[in-house]
Amino acid sequence: MKERNPAGESPEKKAAGIAAADLVTDGMVVGLGTGSTTAYTIAELGRRVDEGLDIIAVVTSYQSEMLAIQAGITLTSLAEHPELDIAIDGADQIDAGLNVIKGGGAAHTREKVVSRSAERFVIVADESKYSEQLNHYVPLEVLPYAKELVSKQVRKMGGDPVLRLASRKDGPVISDNGNFIIDASLGVIETPVIISALLSQVAGIVEHGIFTNVDEVYIGKKDGSVEIMS
Amino acid sequence: MKERNPAGESPEKKAAGIAAADLVTDGMVVGLGTGSTTAYTIAELGRRVDEGLDIIAVVTSYQSEMLAIQAGITLTSLAEHPELDIAIDGADQIDAGLNVIKGGGAAHTREKVVSRSAERFVIVADESKYSEQLNHYVPLEVLPYAKELVSKQVRKMGGDPVLRLASRKDGPVISDNGNFIIDASLGVIETPVIISALLSQVAGIVEHGIFTNVDEVYIGKKDGSVEIMS
Repeated sequence: MKERNPAGESPEKKAAGIAAADLVTDGMVVGLGTGSTTAYTIAELGRRVDEGLDIIAVVTSYQSEMLAIQAGITLTSLAEHPELDIAIDGADQIDAGLNVIKGGGAAHTREKVVSRSAERFVIVADESKYSEQLNHYVPLEVLPYAKELVSKQVRKMGGDPVLRLASRKDGPVISDNGNFIIDASLGVIETPVIISALLSQVAGIVEHGIFTNVDEVYIGKKDGSVEIMS
Repeated sequence: MKERNPAGESPEKKAAGIAAADLVTDGMVVGLGTGSTTAYTIAELGRRVDEGLDIIAVVTSYQSEMLAIQAGITLTSLAEHPELDIAIDGADQIDAGLNVIKGGGAAHTREKVVSRSAERFVIVADESKYSEQLNHYVPLEVLPYAKELVSKQVRKMGGDPVLRLASRKDGPVISDNGNFIIDASLGVIETPVIISALLSQVAGIVEHGIFTNVDEVYIGKKDGSVEIMS
């Protein structure tokens, strides 16, 4: 099946995505993230598999499943391989403390489960994603019948909740898990660990997009170089 | 459609269920819980609706939806009525501090969303459900692909996770939301608020069965009396 690539080629994303793929070696079980930067990682791993690299992978979305199959990477599941050697994934924003916000692709729930199952969790991104402090909206995967309660709780936290609407179907975006996405603008997030804990306790939020378990970040620059933060 | 009632008649449950129904008055929007004790509340509300009581209700499961329809109670949704006047629900265990464990019926996720949407949250139960401290297993609604990760996290907390198997279908119980249930034995739960917060932060748990937002508990005794804890 052919997939559209609306983003087009990006040298920064490509540099980061390919550099992180170098961390993958023979025998590894690899978590494959979702998004335009991780797509380069998946393509590069597919190239190396063609050359003999021996890995198996767990996907985080229908998108990464399709890309991995296209790339010729053998897939497995968390049921068969609950412990991953490494997970590589993209991000919407990264702060100086390696906290990240994810979920622009509505895949952050499965991405979080996969990242928490991995020995090492690596983020790949272009430099536009870096911010001293997090101030990006936080995607929340929400049970459809809980959208009012979650919106109210977000407002109580001083935030602004917006139900994410689909652009190529009528009505709201539906996640791969069958849920809604509420994008919660919370201003500057000075204490990601605390905001993360508070959001986790809101009934009806299946998972939120703040990740505090990142080991390294590979940032691709415009000149093609890659900076590693850890 | 006929429904089996495997539990049979229980005077304690009936006393508690009917007493709590007295809290419901004309014009209220009511959250209807799930389980054998709440079934008495729903039946009693249906009886009063026949006599002219004017209410609308939000259900917490397919079970309570079927019972409410059978009882002739007009249904609405949280989308239409996000603020409920009262929610009445059952419990698997209740401690001296009004913390409760729910989820024996695998409906605790929606029950929690409904209870958090209500001005007043009342538990109905027979006296066997009371325990000075919580020591019942905690039902966890879990995304199917996260069952290994959640089991591992429960073990890290010193607990014993058991995937709940169905008795009238092959394989695991599937919740009304399409997920698995893991019953986590955690021993005596001395700090329900803390254990609740910790479980909320485990990736892959949609919702856990510890409720710390109960306003009153109606406990039915063998002699037909009802004790109110608040």
